[in-house]
Amino acid sequence: MTNERQASAPTKVRYGVIGVGNMGSSHVDTIRSGRIAGAEVTAICDGVAGKREWAKERWPDIAVFEDSASMLASGLVDAVLVACPHYDHPPEAIQAFAKGMHVLIEKPAGVYVKQVREMNEAAKASGKKFGIMYNQRMNPLYRKLRELIATGELGEIRRTNWIITNWYRSQAYYDSGTWRATWAGEGGGVLINQCPHQLDLWPWTIGMMPSRIRAFCQEGKHRNIEVENDVTAYAEYPNGATGVFITSTADAPGTNRFEVTGDRGKIVIEDGRMTFWRLRESESEFNAHNTVPFGRPEAWKIEIPLDGPNPEHAGIIQNFTNAILHGDELEAPGEEGILGLSISNAIHLSSWIDGWVDLPLDEELHLAELNKRIASSKYRQDSSDAPAAKPVDMSRTF
Amino acid sequence: MTNERQASAPTKVRYGVIGVGNMGSSHVDTIRSGRIAGAEVTAICDGVAGKREWAKERWPDIAVFEDSASMLASGLVDAVLVACPHYDHPPEAIQAFAKGMHVLIEKPAGVYVKQVREMNEAAKASGKKFGIMYNQRMNPLYRKLRELIATGELGEIRRTNWIITNWYRSQAYYDSGTWRATWAGEGGGVLINQCPHQLDLWPWTIGMMPSRIRAFCQEGKHRNIEVENDVTAYAEYPNGATGVFITSTADAPGTNRFEVTGDRGKIVIEDGRMTFWRLRESESEFNAHNTVPFGRPEAWKIEIPLDGPNPEHAGIIQNFTNAILHGDELEAPGEEGILGLSISNAIHLSSWIDGWVDLPLDEELHLAELNKRIASSKYRQDSSDAPAAKPVDMSRTF
Repeated sequence: MTNERQASAPTKVRYGVIGVGNMGSSHVDTIRSGRIAGAEVTAICDGVAGKREWAKERWPDIAVFEDSASMLASGLVDAVLVACPHYDHPPEAIQAFAKGMHVLIEKPAGVYVKQVREMNEAAKASGKKFGIMYNQRMNPLYRKLRELIATGELGEIRRTNWIITNWYRSQAYYDSGTWRATWAGEGGGVLINQCPHQLDLWPWTIGMMPSRIRAFCQEGKHRNIEVENDVTAYAEYPNGATGVFITSTADAPGTNRFEVTGDRGKIVIEDGRMTFWRLRESESEFNAHNTVPFGRPEAWKIEIPLDGPNPEHAGIIQNFTNAILHGDELEAPGEEGILGLSISNAIHLSSWIDGWVDLPLDEELHLAELNKRIASSKYRQDSSDAPAAKPVDMSRTF
Repeated sequence: MTNERQASAPTKVRYGVIGVGNMGSSHVDTIRSGRIAGAEVTAICDGVAGKREWAKERWPDIAVFEDSASMLASGLVDAVLVACPHYDHPPEAIQAFAKGMHVLIEKPAGVYVKQVREMNEAAKASGKKFGIMYNQRMNPLYRKLRELIATGELGEIRRTNWIITNWYRSQAYYDSGTWRATWAGEGGGVLINQCPHQLDLWPWTIGMMPSRIRAFCQEGKHRNIEVENDVTAYAEYPNGATGVFITSTADAPGTNRFEVTGDRGKIVIEDGRMTFWRLRESESEFNAHNTVPFGRPEAWKIEIPLDGPNPEHAGIIQNFTNAILHGDELEAPGEEGILGLSISNAIHLSSWIDGWVDLPLDEELHLAELNKRIASSKYRQDSSDAPAAKPVDMSRTF
């Protein structure tokens, strides 16, 4: 690299944040804290006047816009961080790509696969960096699991069981916004709002997507809401492995236990620890030569050491910034947001049609079924508190 | 009670054991050890000459018969312990009831609900004592769980998850008898042979049967067998609760973890321990008055003390003997064998028809589907090693 090229290379990514609700404002604070090398926030936009006033007072050196189009046209930003309501992630990202921006979106990628696929196509056409805020991919637990599986330590995957029922949400939570837990406002319940990280980690850690899903969603379980908040999903994989994913917002105290069984043993992640029961020789090898009817392969219980703390959102923003500035590989490419969402959509669809759903998803059928529910949703898009389905308004972010 | 009546009351139950394979001979030894007050073994029968010779040598004071009819006619026995192949439990029990015997059967109650219902009707008509060898009902872990639920400590049940994948069985095990893991020989795989205890405890501990089942069985998973050895079942209960039951014989090292969630918390049984996360107030009460969006009920983690060791089979035999001699209440009434078997049959049927199965079961449909599989079974009933489906022959017991 010549000195001249070094001199001309950008040294900072100028971020514009779309939506400064809980997550958006948290990301602004993270970047302004100086923790992210090579990143600064130069602008934000939010459709709610009160939020803009609040932002001007809190961050007096940051430009504030009413809408994302004005911000994108301002020349102040190189990249956008999309932290508006779920339904608006794809249209906002597509608009930003069209303006030559790099785009980092909050999870979920969107509400339905069809819009997310269109976003992915726009990202590809733009040639810009595209990331998604899957901060749990930075968690040493799940990184280690993925690494152990990718390197063959666990052998071929046979079974996955994730019980992730510790998403307790009271009625008071649901009553805190009329858009919450509605088909028109959020596009789903626990699958769309609480579980996107686990629905990403489930295939990401094992390196394999299900081939088909049969799922059972209960809507308004112990809560006065119209969307699903109690889910049991059964998955089959191309190699014959099976899996179960169970989630809920009404269980207390709930469980977060992820068990993966392979030809070389079993790994359980629970209570922040990873335990690996490693077979001395693989089950298939043992079974091939064993002659003792009640024989079983020798298993060693191992506490797996983990590598450092979870850098969470800051880790994702740093990596995305490094990808723009230095060409680093993305830990969470935005295009991969479609994977967890495909599973999420398949779980919904299987329950709605009371039958199997093959993957890749029939995205038109899913959207048609979703639209039926949006049409009868109790949430009105002209509601005063959070018209989430309006592409311009970002009065509530999460 | 007068002295005269005391004098005339029987002081010992004379047992005849039908089938002296692994389980039957173990029961003979248990009773002969003197551990069971008021019980003695006076006769056995077995269709295999070698077994009879072995029995005469091992237990020289016990009468040995070729078939159960001769033993029942001998006048030597008051009660029979049925330890022949699964398919023959109901016909043997029905025959014994007709001869005025008390009957204690090994698990499973039978292979299909229809025959077990007929056995229950014969038991009722006889007025004799009828028990089933559900020795896990004597396990302090499951007794305690049942008691905590019955007394309302856990509140109304919301979810059950049982991962019982530690039934490791190698190909050598399956190859040890041509009748093993065949439709004609055993009538099923892990559900019929390994899991009957858990399929009983699942409804027994929570005091509730599912209202419908959707299940997914894989046959010959990593094994050369024709029956299911990998099962995932989803259950719905009349009160809206849901449950999952996962079992396998190819996982190593496998898991045995039973989690039950109720309105008042969560109980987990794993590694021989019971942990109760008890809510200080019930979830529904908390939810009714809570106003904090991310509030959650206070949970106390409690290690539940257990009451003594598991008396296992000896406990069941003692209780059954006491029921005959002293009118004690049965811990495991034989009529209740139909409950776990109904779930077992429903899991099979759901997988076979690839759809929902309501409970109580359509037993004719189940039997018709089972008979299709028996007809194409690779096991032949005239096989030299164990013609399990023949009602007279008990050459292999388990």
